[in-house]
Amino acid sequence: MCEEQHLIVIGGTAAGMSAASNARRACPSLKISVFEKTGFISYGSCGLPYYVGGMIEDETELVTFSPEQVRTQKDIAVLTHHEIVAVDAEAKTVTALELETGESRVYGYSKLVIATGASPIILPIPGVDLRGVFTVRTVEDGVNIRDALRSTDGRVVVIGAGWIGLEMAAEMADSGAQVTVLEAAPELLPALHRPYAERLQQLMLNNGVRVLTGTSAAAIEGETHVKAVYTDKGERIPASMVIMAVGVKPNSRLAGEAGLELGIRGGIVVDAQQRTSDPNIWACGDCVQMFHLIDGSPAYIPLGTTANKQGKIAGLNAAGAHKEFPGVLGSQATKLFDLFICATGFSKEQALKAGYAAESHAITKRDRASYYPGGQDNELCLIFDTQDGKLLGAQGIGSQSIAGRINALAVAITAGMTLEDVSKLDLVYAPPVAPVYDPILIAASQSLKKVSRRD
Amino acid sequence: MCEEQHLIVIGGTAAGMSAASNARRACPSLKISVFEKTGFISYGSCGLPYYVGGMIEDETELVTFSPEQVRTQKDIAVLTHHEIVAVDAEAKTVTALELETGESRVYGYSKLVIATGASPIILPIPGVDLRGVFTVRTVEDGVNIRDALRSTDGRVVVIGAGWIGLEMAAEMADSGAQVTVLEAAPELLPALHRPYAERLQQLMLNNGVRVLTGTSAAAIEGETHVKAVYTDKGERIPASMVIMAVGVKPNSRLAGEAGLELGIRGGIVVDAQQRTSDPNIWACGDCVQMFHLIDGSPAYIPLGTTANKQGKIAGLNAAGAHKEFPGVLGSQATKLFDLFICATGFSKEQALKAGYAAESHAITKRDRASYYPGGQDNELCLIFDTQDGKLLGAQGIGSQSIAGRINALAVAITAGMTLEDVSKLDLVYAPPVAPVYDPILIAASQSLKKVSRRD
Repeated sequence: MCEEQHLIVIGGTAAGMSAASNARRACPSLKISVFEKTGFISYGSCGLPYYVGGMIEDETELVTFSPEQVRTQKDIAVLTHHEIVAVDAEAKTVTALELETGESRVYGYSKLVIATGASPIILPIPGVDLRGVFTVRTVEDGVNIRDALRSTDGRVVVIGAGWIGLEMAAEMADSGAQVTVLEAAPELLPALHRPYAERLQQLMLNNGVRVLTGTSAAAIEGETHVKAVYTDKGERIPASMVIMAVGVKPNSRLAGEAGLELGIRGGIVVDAQQRTSDPNIWACGDCVQMFHLIDGSPAYIPLGTTANKQGKIAGLNAAGAHKEFPGVLGSQATKLFDLFICATGFSKEQALKAGYAAESHAITKRDRASYYPGGQDNELCLIFDTQDGKLLGAQGIGSQSIAGRINALAVAITAGMTLEDVSKLDLVYAPPVAPVYDPILIAASQSLKKVSRRD
Repeated sequence: MCEEQHLIVIGGTAAGMSAASNARRACPSLKISVFEKTGFISYGSCGLPYYVGGMIEDETELVTFSPEQVRTQKDIAVLTHHEIVAVDAEAKTVTALELETGESRVYGYSKLVIATGASPIILPIPGVDLRGVFTVRTVEDGVNIRDALRSTDGRVVVIGAGWIGLEMAAEMADSGAQVTVLEAAPELLPALHRPYAERLQQLMLNNGVRVLTGTSAAAIEGETHVKAVYTDKGERIPASMVIMAVGVKPNSRLAGEAGLELGIRGGIVVDAQQRTSDPNIWACGDCVQMFHLIDGSPAYIPLGTTANKQGKIAGLNAAGAHKEFPGVLGSQATKLFDLFICATGFSKEQALKAGYAAESHAITKRDRASYYPGGQDNELCLIFDTQDGKLLGAQGIGSQSIAGRINALAVAITAGMTLEDVSKLDLVYAPPVAPVYDPILIAASQSLKKVSRRD
């Protein structure tokens, strides 16, 4: 059924390459072409902060497959430096602009997968076009930032204290840069349990990163090259580099112009099978509107993990399957200096907004038996419905083991477990691995006291 | 309702102290007495190998509460060195023998919790009564072993290569002892994925521990003190110490003599509320027959985690509640030298025996993004039903992060998830924490190929 068809995939990063590879697996004879605007496909942009900071030596390490490997090993045509500038859903064609020659050409498709990703938001302030202003998205961005970091005096202003801004700030500071972070919101990381956000701000400070909350960038000074950043408070911060990290927006212009329905934040509307409003077009990854796994509400939480999974489903379905994506919890992790931070599901504020009688409870507990040496604290915060005790979210900071604990809680949320269920989980125990009552169990038992209807 | 009653708890370790403390919380005016045969209560016997090996300095570190603390802080009477020698369920009395004076006394109870634990099995071979032969169960055992280790030439034979035998062997070898382990079964750890068991055997060898499988201890030589162990193959292994670690049996004689029903392996039969066949008697921990969470079948998997949770439920119910224990998965962990080993649910052999069309699939995957330095391998084996894809068990070895992964899978098994469900889980990701496709997701996706009926 999928034979003698042509699948075109727009975008060759996580979602697009996952779609192409899975379509290939499902249908060996399908003709598959991937169009990618940049010079790299299949790269891990989440590794960019570590590449910039120097922990990852070479940019090619970020790349899983080269176009040549994909071509020869998977029989998938890859056209890099090709930007799709138009989709004609009626005629089932795309128009590709070859960026190096400026020539454009029309290609016909039977099925189309849109995986155009997202673009960094650029604040409309004076000076954003100066040399030395960077975003963090592509391998090329990473190379440019690292080159600049090595050839300038290393004074950096990061605009935006989201996860990417903070990771960049931490890694650059670790490699010797003098970093200031500006965050327009009055507090850091509004979705995080307040004491954790405060702890992170202190951690940044302790490691020499200045973090100014409630402070916007008003303008960037310079003639050809960045010289300083002016804040809305009138402070002038000398800088040779600016990292713009105020979030991303879905690349959905092309889809919108092709007549596809767009949803919240401009994400392409897709159903559980990743199909758009056009039956021959699927979309996946950072360019689509998602659904929250807990309540099915539309959400926009662009993450590489989701992009990979949605890409797989879009690719299989474009090749004839009917797989479904269950929705997102927004599970995420990061490491700033020596501290691990992880979260999944709703924050308390998000849960209240979604209509739950939400409450949270936080505990601090060693990550191994109290008598076993070398233990570190795990701080764990559960978010739950006080009426039925259902677990809605979990956040934690501490040693690396917090990641496994948040994952276990992500599974519990996916399964619709209550705090009572969680408090009875049979988890592994050994003195070097956990206390006999794992922090997960302690947190659930204590949280239960705030639930009105138990059992 | 619980007022003016007397709750007697037999046994002051994990299950017993948990029962007493939770009964106190549920009923402030209840009279509670705990009888404990040894001189210590509330201790972590899982820490004994690390105490013997010297990683934990002082035996008091293994103890969470002293009898005095429990008396003053929780208003619970604790009688150490008191052995209960008879229970009269008709008269609702127990007879306590004060071990130091030899005097006995009868106490009346309204409700009784039996938490008598388990005893190490002693092989009936010549020489087991010699000085220098030890079991690993109580704080006193730990002190005696450590004293012996420091005052002898440090040649040790461990009989039995279960988890406790291997932990003891590893910790004693690490502290300089010359250790031989004898295991009667032809292979190490029959419930573990074969390649993992072989890897462990090699690991022990690499660290100077001789492991002889298919080899029993035939006799222990010595006049007053251990001089050597003879194997059933006729080898004489010179030794000044023998550690007997061939498993435990429930301490249920007392319960049996009182007319309570006993089940598999002699464990006391209890219902989901931990109630015995006598309506005024509850039992919990290593002395009871358990139920497997997956299929409800009777099981005997004595673990500290289960003892604590069952103790809590027995204590609350003895004080008037009607809580239920959901059953055991047998989730466990250990660390041998630098390798972490964790397991939950059924092994493939156990699942086949229980009637499932079980299959297993193992993968090896880095525990963080391939390009992020310092990653270690996680080896993960899933056990599942090939007919409906339901996850039945998981085992893993590798870095510490394997514990969190097995916990996440334990939650998935508890929730009755299929491999398809697991393959779509939204787990945390960051290059220092996990690869973008977590080993859990890879293992589930690959295992799916062995399932006949999908979606």
